[in-house]
Amino acid sequence: MKPLPGFRDFLPEDCAFRNAIFATWREVCRRYGFVEWDGPVLEPTELLQKKSGPEIVSQLFNFTDKGEREVTLRPELTPTLARVVAAHAREFRKPLKWFSIPQCFRYEKKQRGRLREHFQLNCDLIGDDSLGADVEIIALAIDLLRGLGFTPNDFVVRLSDRAFWTDLLTAENVPNERWTELLQAIDKSEREPREKTAEKLGSLGEPVFKVLDGGGRSEKLEQLVQKLAQRGLADFAKIDLSIVRGLAYYTGVVFEIFDRKGELRAIAGGGRYDKLIAQLSDNAVSLPAVGFAMGDVVLGELIKGNPVAAQQLDEFVRRESALDLYLVIAKEERRADAMRQLQQLRDAGWRVDYPMAAAKVGKQFQTAESLGARATLLYGDEWPAVKLKTLQSREEVLLPNEEIVQRIRALLAA
Amino acid sequence: MKPLPGFRDFLPEDCAFRNAIFATWREVCRRYGFVEWDGPVLEPTELLQKKSGPEIVSQLFNFTDKGEREVTLRPELTPTLARVVAAHAREFRKPLKWFSIPQCFRYEKKQRGRLREHFQLNCDLIGDDSLGADVEIIALAIDLLRGLGFTPNDFVVRLSDRAFWTDLLTAENVPNERWTELLQAIDKSEREPREKTAEKLGSLGEPVFKVLDGGGRSEKLEQLVQKLAQRGLADFAKIDLSIVRGLAYYTGVVFEIFDRKGELRAIAGGGRYDKLIAQLSDNAVSLPAVGFAMGDVVLGELIKGNPVAAQQLDEFVRRESALDLYLVIAKEERRADAMRQLQQLRDAGWRVDYPMAAAKVGKQFQTAESLGARATLLYGDEWPAVKLKTLQSREEVLLPNEEIVQRIRALLAA
Repeated sequence: MKPLPGFRDFLPEDCAFRNAIFATWREVCRRYGFVEWDGPVLEPTELLQKKSGPEIVSQLFNFTDKGEREVTLRPELTPTLARVVAAHAREFRKPLKWFSIPQCFRYEKKQRGRLREHFQLNCDLIGDDSLGADVEIIALAIDLLRGLGFTPNDFVVRLSDRAFWTDLLTAENVPNERWTELLQAIDKSEREPREKTAEKLGSLGEPVFKVLDGGGRSEKLEQLVQKLAQRGLADFAKIDLSIVRGLAYYTGVVFEIFDRKGELRAIAGGGRYDKLIAQLSDNAVSLPAVGFAMGDVVLGELIKGNPVAAQQLDEFVRRESALDLYLVIAKEERRADAMRQLQQLRDAGWRVDYPMAAAKVGKQFQTAESLGARATLLYGDEWPAVKLKTLQSREEVLLPNEEIVQRIRALLAA
Repeated sequence: MKPLPGFRDFLPEDCAFRNAIFATWREVCRRYGFVEWDGPVLEPTELLQKKSGPEIVSQLFNFTDKGEREVTLRPELTPTLARVVAAHAREFRKPLKWFSIPQCFRYEKKQRGRLREHFQLNCDLIGDDSLGADVEIIALAIDLLRGLGFTPNDFVVRLSDRAFWTDLLTAENVPNERWTELLQAIDKSEREPREKTAEKLGSLGEPVFKVLDGGGRSEKLEQLVQKLAQRGLADFAKIDLSIVRGLAYYTGVVFEIFDRKGELRAIAGGGRYDKLIAQLSDNAVSLPAVGFAMGDVVLGELIKGNPVAAQQLDEFVRRESALDLYLVIAKEERRADAMRQLQQLRDAGWRVDYPMAAAKVGKQFQTAESLGARATLLYGDEWPAVKLKTLQSREEVLLPNEEIVQRIRALLAA
């Protein structure tokens, strides 16, 4: 009995790892004034097909429901965001700063290590078309990774501009219906032999290769880097016009974040999509927007491969999950007394566990150690006093049971 | 453009409400030494059909995937738990104390207010067949609601025992294949006219009604109440043998939690399922288990209808989401300086926002108020000093900009 191919079980250790990433994401987003929202895991297929590029559509995890609706397990959150914002735009002060951590899905041919689900932080800034908004969203992406312990030696944000390329296509008189295909050829140029890209580009090869070989200049992107420099974040970014992004809806600045070693797929990617909300609401609402997504799978690999980040995450997990106290029941006659105090100790906010069944004292101490308890309380011959033992220092102290809650508070705080 | 019928969008306010419930659930579970895990949102239909009662199966949100697999959006987590525990049992010290907050799904005819998805806290204690384990799990269910601000005046745990009823069926020589049908008739007796139940029960009517009318006694349940009393929790529980639970896999103590006013559906329900893990693993692993689930929808209604719980939750949401500082940029020439400090302030862990575009000072203060900021920092003529204003007290103080981080730390702590 296994999970479906491409789906993960999260055993407690995996879940703690995942939750530590989520907690850092939430914490950093809130520092930026972003608020959390969420949408349905299932959406009408039409919402996704109309608005996404063909790459996404061919991998949809879609089906017909019992009510004959064409539905899809969301492959990304942006179409849902556009739907929700278009429906509720008037209720909120602009700009919106929204984040979400949806689980997203795709159905593609099974490949080594490729999952069919992942969790994806989405951050979007809606209602502001300035370069300042692009800077704020890119700074957030950088700080999310800094918050996990990474430095400029670990990752780089590659900055580009979709408008730079569509301007070039316009200048070269390329008909609009060929844009998607050509932009994808540019997007893939880094991963394909030059001849193959040249073949796809045809007469456009010359001007495009000139840019890709370093002959392009974007004043907008230079300004963007300068504004990141004001915040002390320029070391994390570089202009790289070969970034185009697969999705069709981007309209301006786009970016992707990669590990410096170049061993992993993109850690995050995003950009400006000023027309999507209008498009999805049949022009009832028009709001500029910029955002990005960061998945948990590649990020998890990056953390596990980085000693500093891995240790920081481990410490977070330990803080979150370690027990405060383990009750050692040395005499079964004391179990009822221990259970009474158990409730008081938990009511005081501490994490407390105990043996369900009678067990030897030595075994109970072993359990306390293996659960990571900070201290034990022993209920035995000393009753009505209780023996408190701090497991790290091995110090023991005898406490009258009616003073336990207040005495333990002092000891655990120390 | 709307979400699919029965699916919810979570706007920031809804999401904060949901997250406050989740945070309380996590906090209380950890006090009990429970650790979080999770399973896939999609499972093979076979896993769910084989192990669940017929009520669940008729409402499955199931479909055929592109690989011709019969799959289902999980209606509950227990079959997944049994699958995961059976596969990994040897890796963990028993008993396991595991919780999870899955989103669960069902597909049923659309009804007023009935959703097709909800979030559901699941808590399970695996590997201990003692009554003490039942007590621990029921105490946890009670403390989860106490943690949200509820008292014995607000809810009651109705305790019953599936074994009590199967013993009775055995004593009455009822053939095994009729058990499910008869147990369901008893389960529904409270909501149906007595004649209808009598008709379903046939010759079993007399002994069953004797019990339902108060003539049944369960020593096990009396012990259970006594053990809850040791923890000071007896006021939250009462024995009520009319509780049977719809799912087929329960084997012992079962319970449901209801609001005292009797206005809502069950807030939570669960019980002992000692044979499910063996059944799902073809007897490779056999572990007794007890657990329960608590959904977010009924609980949300209960909170919103209770002033104490609603206020406690509101305060939690405010603590989680309020801004610390809003930067007022009185002179655009100071924007670059403000952006530099923005980064330092956020790096210090504070939640800081600012205007993306130039705006009048009065409007900026309004925005600061509406975002719930505790204080503003004004960048204007006073530069290189910055004016800090505490919004509640209206106190203002002029700070040299290089001292800001440390000075604000003291002021915000006060």
